[in-house]
Amino acid sequence: MSTKQGFAIGELPKGARNAITDVEGVHVGHVTLADGHIQTGVTAIRIGNENPFHVRARAAVQVFNGFGKSAGLMQIEELGELETPILLTNTLSVGAVTEGVVEYMCAKTQEIGREAGTVNACVFECNDGFINDIRGFHVRPHHVWEALANAGPEFKQGAVGAGRGMSAFGLKGGIGSASRIVKVGKRDYTLGVMVLSNMGRLPDFIMAGKEMGDKLQPLVEEREHGPEKGSIIMIVGTDLPLSERQLKRVARRTSVGLARTGSFLGHGSGDIALAFTTSDPVRTQSRARTMTVEQIDERRIDRVFRATAEATEEAILNSMLYAETVSGRNNHTRYALSELLSSLEGK
Amino acid sequence: MSTKQGFAIGELPKGARNAITDVEGVHVGHVTLADGHIQTGVTAIRIGNENPFHVRARAAVQVFNGFGKSAGLMQIEELGELETPILLTNTLSVGAVTEGVVEYMCAKTQEIGREAGTVNACVFECNDGFINDIRGFHVRPHHVWEALANAGPEFKQGAVGAGRGMSAFGLKGGIGSASRIVKVGKRDYTLGVMVLSNMGRLPDFIMAGKEMGDKLQPLVEEREHGPEKGSIIMIVGTDLPLSERQLKRVARRTSVGLARTGSFLGHGSGDIALAFTTSDPVRTQSRARTMTVEQIDERRIDRVFRATAEATEEAILNSMLYAETVSGRNNHTRYALSELLSSLEGK
Amino acid sequence: MSTKQGFAIGELPKGARNAITDVEGVHVGHVTLADGHIQTGVTAIRIGNENPFHVRARAAVQVFNGFGKSAGLMQIEELGELETPILLTNTLSVGAVTEGVVEYMCAKTQEIGREAGTVNACVFECNDGFINDIRGFHVRPHHVWEALANAGPEFKQGAVGAGRGMSAFGLKGGIGSASRIVKVGKRDYTLGVMVLSNMGRLPDFIMAGKEMGDKLQPLVEEREHGPEKGSIIMIVGTDLPLSERQLKRVARRTSVGLARTGSFLGHGSGDIALAFTTSDPVRTQSRARTMTVEQIDERRIDRVFRATAEATEEAILNSMLYAETVSGRNNHTRYALSELLSSLEGK
Amino acid sequence: MSTKQGFAIGELPKGARNAITDVEGVHVGHVTLADGHIQTGVTAIRIGNENPFHVRARAAVQVFNGFGKSAGLMQIEELGELETPILLTNTLSVGAVTEGVVEYMCAKTQEIGREAGTVNACVFECNDGFINDIRGFHVRPHHVWEALANAGPEFKQGAVGAGRGMSAFGLKGGIGSASRIVKVGKRDYTLGVMVLSNMGRLPDFIMAGKEMGDKLQPLVEEREHGPEKGSIIMIVGTDLPLSERQLKRVARRTSVGLARTGSFLGHGSGDIALAFTTSDPVRTQSRARTMTVEQIDERRIDRVFRATAEATEEAILNSMLYAETVSGRNNHTRYALSELLSSLEGK
Repeated sequence: MSTKQGFAIGELPKGARNAITDVEGVHVGHVTLADGHIQTGVTAIRIGNENPFHVRARAAVQVFNGFGKSAGLMQIEELGELETPILLTNTLSVGAVTEGVVEYMCAKTQEIGREAGTVNACVFECNDGFINDIRGFHVRPHHVWEALANAGPEFKQGAVGAGRGMSAFGLKGGIGSASRIVKVGKRDYTLGVMVLSNMGRLPDFIMAGKEMGDKLQPLVEEREHGPEKGSIIMIVGTDLPLSERQLKRVARRTSVGLARTGSFLGHGSGDIALAFTTSDPVRTQSRARTMTVEQIDERRIDRVFRATAEATEEAILNSMLYAETVSGRNNHTRYALSELLSSLEGK
Repeated sequence: MSTKQGFAIGELPKGARNAITDVEGVHVGHVTLADGHIQTGVTAIRIGNENPFHVRARAAVQVFNGFGKSAGLMQIEELGELETPILLTNTLSVGAVTEGVVEYMCAKTQEIGREAGTVNACVFECNDGFINDIRGFHVRPHHVWEALANAGPEFKQGAVGAGRGMSAFGLKGGIGSASRIVKVGKRDYTLGVMVLSNMGRLPDFIMAGKEMGDKLQPLVEEREHGPEKGSIIMIVGTDLPLSERQLKRVARRTSVGLARTGSFLGHGSGDIALAFTTSDPVRTQSRARTMTVEQIDERRIDRVFRATAEATEEAILNSMLYAETVSGRNNHTRYALSELLSSLEGK
Repeated sequence: MSTKQGFAIGELPKGARNAITDVEGVHVGHVTLADGHIQTGVTAIRIGNENPFHVRARAAVQVFNGFGKSAGLMQIEELGELETPILLTNTLSVGAVTEGVVEYMCAKTQEIGREAGTVNACVFECNDGFINDIRGFHVRPHHVWEALANAGPEFKQGAVGAGRGMSAFGLKGGIGSASRIVKVGKRDYTLGVMVLSNMGRLPDFIMAGKEMGDKLQPLVEEREHGPEKGSIIMIVGTDLPLSERQLKRVARRTSVGLARTGSFLGHGSGDIALAFTTSDPVRTQSRARTMTVEQIDERRIDRVFRATAEATEEAILNSMLYAETVSGRNNHTRYALSELLSSLEGK
Repeated sequence: MSTKQGFAIGELPKGARNAITDVEGVHVGHVTLADGHIQTGVTAIRIGNENPFHVRARAAVQVFNGFGKSAGLMQIEELGELETPILLTNTLSVGAVTEGVVEYMCAKTQEIGREAGTVNACVFECNDGFINDIRGFHVRPHHVWEALANAGPEFKQGAVGAGRGMSAFGLKGGIGSASRIVKVGKRDYTLGVMVLSNMGRLPDFIMAGKEMGDKLQPLVEEREHGPEKGSIIMIVGTDLPLSERQLKRVARRTSVGLARTGSFLGHGSGDIALAFTTSDPVRTQSRARTMTVEQIDERRIDRVFRATAEATEEAILNSMLYAETVSGRNNHTRYALSELLSSLEGK
């Protein structure tokens, strides 16, 4: 089964959970704030069991449309590594979540701010202001700790965590995931994608190759189609042996999956991807003067690109298919795609 | 009619010719070399009637996958302007065509290499080595002059000019174009796209939203599906008032149209876009110390992005629909999509 | 007089204050926290009297070494505009200051988080952990309001505001500024630079062309010369008519001034520049569909580059010359350059 | 001895030849065309004895000012590897030299343009039009073969090869080189720089920390100081274990050496750096699915940055100190720095 609803995206095999947590050591956790006009939250991705300041996953970033406020990307671009967990939240809470990550890392790591320089919090965001009272600053630093404490290999998708208040294609969006198995030689590697979806206009929505906008539009009350707003964050995790340069090439292929769901990379949409690998992390407590990094022969990388595009498209669809209908601020409501599809079938 | 075959791509109205030459002053010309194992050529885009070294179109470049040999892009990125016509040819002929452009510009412009510094030839390429004897260096500098002399508002699409030997999705590719009208306030502007298509695997081909790979594959002899090779060059021309920064954002949206035809931005594919505007060109013979540049209010740019995505997707399909079947080196053959579609309908 | 101490840097004339506030409408304010082991603060730059969310200065960013945690740069790169004041603080306080900026902007601007999308806080940082108890999180969101309230055309330099705890070339660094007058035709424009200096090793220090490391080193107790750490933030403000592309080119020339003071763009140093202009700001409350932007003829831009390099070098020296000796955490002390120079002269 | 004239730049030890060819396997060769108004040439850098299409040095590029026409940089950025020798020539000959490189590589490599895709010629340039008849297209493709045939561990510096017609700081520039030894643990590595210098104004010239413009200017007839034109190409070669990301960081530090000689990164100057390593090259004939790449611990990279800055500054000075006075087109003359220095000493 390709997605929750059974759509088949692409040709590569999936991982056991069809989620980013199929990559060994990758855990996801949420804090969801859902109370009337407060519909928001925090989602955390942990990589490995060790302190991420000491064992750093290689990573790279690709910005498709930089209309966004995510934090920490400049240093990841320069040094090619993560040194904190990855956090996601609403736009106006980037400050609070950044502070939460820094507090958390300082608590776990005595040398930060003393001998070891400082710490680069990696925080992504989308704008959930349509159904969440984003001006209320309801996310606080301690929610970072909670989301991290909740992280595990199994996690909910849809209107949860940072995805609680997000909208995709005018319907309910949020957290979605998918994974693919990539064989290199005789060995199976895993590549997973997790998205925070918050972009697109309903008339443009394409579901597994089918244009659905005209069918779905009449089922939704909203009449006006404003410009594409919101954003999408696409996180690619893998255990494939990839250099930072290769990870950047991988991150770039998420745009293929995104375009196939109907997004035009709208002006107001902060469309950003990050790719990391658990292979050959940087160990800062090592005293070795050099290290060796395994990387895939570049001529064999096309399958990795394909896996990225497939899993991204599917993760976006899953973020919508798993979501429930949510009402929030001013009774603004985003409907669940699954409900609309049932309603279509019932006709 | 949206494309030659009548597919409708998107929702925006088209220009009169549905081609990049709908943009006032933009002319396209070809030289086609088609003789046995020689199946290649040169395509030229001229912008305006004046010497492009003196009246320079603003421009920006976006590289999606930099596995390519195009020339002149670094300076366009730095200075935001074109100073020669745009030329397209096969990969191994970039040297000869660069020399041709420089000769041509020197002949027209006495101050180049004397008082005025030098000239930055803008030359794009794809690899037509599957059906063209690319190692024969059959394109020579004088072909640049011929292609420029042939340039006009009407031009052929398909297996012509630089497109003569190109392949797209395992079928015959080449030169394709489309255009859209973008209304800003009460004024109609034109945005056109011209592509040189040479990318993709047949199993991945999507035609106007329909996955066609499985249907078309049995009609083509080729058994092996190698990795996606080749490249695609996507040129966006417009008369919209856009700054160089905005043009870069526009160029970036060609990737949406490309992804929707089935490309995965394969490793071996040099996927590159350039966008230029004829609005407020830089006039180097002016003595004014400052100039004013009109640019669109950024909050209204989404329609320009949509036009770019639509016209790019359609231009790629047109490059295939207009192409005839071509055989060349070693009797390698690329079949015309139109022939295969007729054959499907006949069944 | 070129600098506080009378060094002449370059050949262009200076503005009246020899500071970034020579640019009409640019104001600077500090909050300084100086109490035992707490030696840190916040510095704010305001541009114009109107709400910066409604009247946006064009801007561009250049990252020389991205080992840093500054916030908001991605969106400035994409959209070419500032929409908040510019704030500077210590590294671990970027979260708190970001929250402070967002609170401040929300208070002033009802549509943020409702109709207007969100707001992109522009926050720069360096690491003052050597003499400041950076792990204590002493900077809070309300300090943003205070620094903004303190902003005016006259401001202190040296160990104040965000510069309170910073070190440059192993001595006391902090806030420094300088300006140059650039004549274009008959009109005088102003270009000012403000730096937050926190980089370099003493043995490498060059003061106005003279290598000073060997002379100064014996006067300082510190024996060990670790790697270059810290960072430098260089803000260029001007009223010159410059496009966003041109502003990026200007920002890039700050590296010339930086190199001439002895920095090697060390691995651990986040070396970042931002350039903005008050000319032709983006007015988001305008209903015009297009706008015109004046920009300098590119062939006349060299003088702007020279002004940038000169003012940057001088601003760095001023940040040191104006600074007093400061002791903080664990009695760590950074000595004032001016004291060491007096001591040298006395010998 | 630091330079030909004995100036000491920096603190690190030099290699045996104080040249880029101190890096094992790196060879340099020239073709010099010096006949009346023809004063130009070609310089080639070979890396290793094997076909560079089969054994590819890792590489990265940094563009400081993209006002230039160099070829091949986009693919090096994408794939992180060189697949041809590095060639340097005059601006208007980039087409001819590109064709020469492609011919040469095709002759050595049967699969190019057949099974193996195409080849990415790496060609750098500066504008020698002041003393060379650059509009005469005197460099032809066969000169590439000759320069490569001439390549060896010993090579001339100054007004030779591509440097024959170049000007630096209004004096004679051209080819210069220097090297440094970098110890990592107990092992000595070599880092060398070769420049093609063609930038700067005489009043700005700084020689080993001393401002020389005012002294030298009276000795030179030229009265007018136009804007900084020309360009500089800076090639860093090393055997240090560096990833492509790290090589880019190394390339970026050449700007430190450049700024210290007095350049302002002038508008008209194409200032570009490339860094390559001979460590762990990509072997395309290997059938291994993955490879391992050794790379330096990032916290130890500062010494590599310092070596780059020192060797670049010294290579620029050497390009001037080794050059003889050359007259060419229209009796335009560029004087040798060494002659002017002798004349100063004689006073």
